[in-house]
Amino acid sequence: MTLKHLNSGDILSQAVEHAGVIYLAGLTADDLSADIKGQTRQVLDKIDGILRKMGSDKSKLLAATLYFTNIDQKAAANEVWKAWLGSLERPARAGIGVTLNSPETLIEIMVTAAK
Amino acid sequence: MTLKHLNSGDILSQAVEHAGVIYLAGLTADDLSADIKGQTRQVLDKIDGILRKMGSDKSKLLAATLYFTNIDQKAAANEVWKAWLGSLERPARAGIGVTLNSPETLIEIMVTAAK
Amino acid sequence: MTLKHLNSGDILSQAVEHAGVIYLAGLTADDLSADIKGQTRQVLDKIDGILRKMGSDKSKLLAATLYFTNIDQKAAANEVWKAWLGSLERPARAGIGVTLNSPETLIEIMVTAAK
Repeated sequence: MTLKHLNSGDILSQAVEHAGVIYLAGLTADDLSADIKGQTRQVLDKIDGILRKMGSDKSKLLAATLYFTNIDQKAAANEVWKAWLGSLERPARAGIGVTLNSPETLIEIMVTAAK
Repeated sequence: MTLKHLNSGDILSQAVEHAGVIYLAGLTADDLSADIKGQTRQVLDKIDGILRKMGSDKSKLLAATLYFTNIDQKAAANEVWKAWLGSLERPARAGIGVTLNSPETLIEIMVTAAK
Repeated sequence: MTLKHLNSGDILSQAVEHAGVIYLAGLTADDLSADIKGQTRQVLDKIDGILRKMGSDKSKLLAATLYFTNIDQKAAANEVWKAWLGSLERPARAGIGVTLNSPETLIEIMVTAAK
């Protein structure tokens, strides 16, 4: 069975498709001067773009893991998350506090989606 | 290919089924006054209930990630985990220490299972 | 649909196969006196061995989560990671800082692969 990679770089691919499932890399914001809501928006925009390139969209999300530098910022991120999903059905999800690449990196999100 | 969601709420679905695989949300105990063993039991009970509603059971677990507030409590959680699985074959598993929703939340478990 | 387990023990299986996807356990080094590069090499060797036993190999990796005790060691681990993958296309990947089984455990890696 073939795999399809999107933007395979030195370290990772932005997405890999196999058997109708798309695995996305953990994504962070480009502009880390943004607050948690701004960074969450940037990451969800990235996910939209990658899913589109892979022939899918956010209505087909299966599962998501949200990694926070400060778990207390989950509520604020959730507001952006809810607006993003609108009336769509939600994926399975976990959100935990960890150490990310830098203290300025407030959120990283890794999702899987159906094709 | 269709997705089946269980209890899709504001933030997440408790489970999503796609192509014979069931993705469960990260689950925590309802009674956070319980110790690590009690909370682990509560979470595993929830997993049993969700899997049953999705037409599966714990014999079909594929992978599990256990998130601990205090990684030193993994051994105690493992006793409950082993009793729960009995003689069944085990899923792939990782268990790591992170920051959960509150200091009282001692464990969160996220699993995938076959239908 | 049948599941195939590799080395199902008390707590976990080293790998579970279902529907053409192989879920590996979170793996750590056996010799924890090694530095981050040495431990990363040990873990990637284990992944090679398990994938081989499951009838797959590293060219078929779908997604990987790398857990670090010290996120600042990610860059050094990445050197070993890049050498390991050579010219192969990369899996989707996230790398985060968490608390592992002991302070000496510097890295744990959990991957999924296609059969």
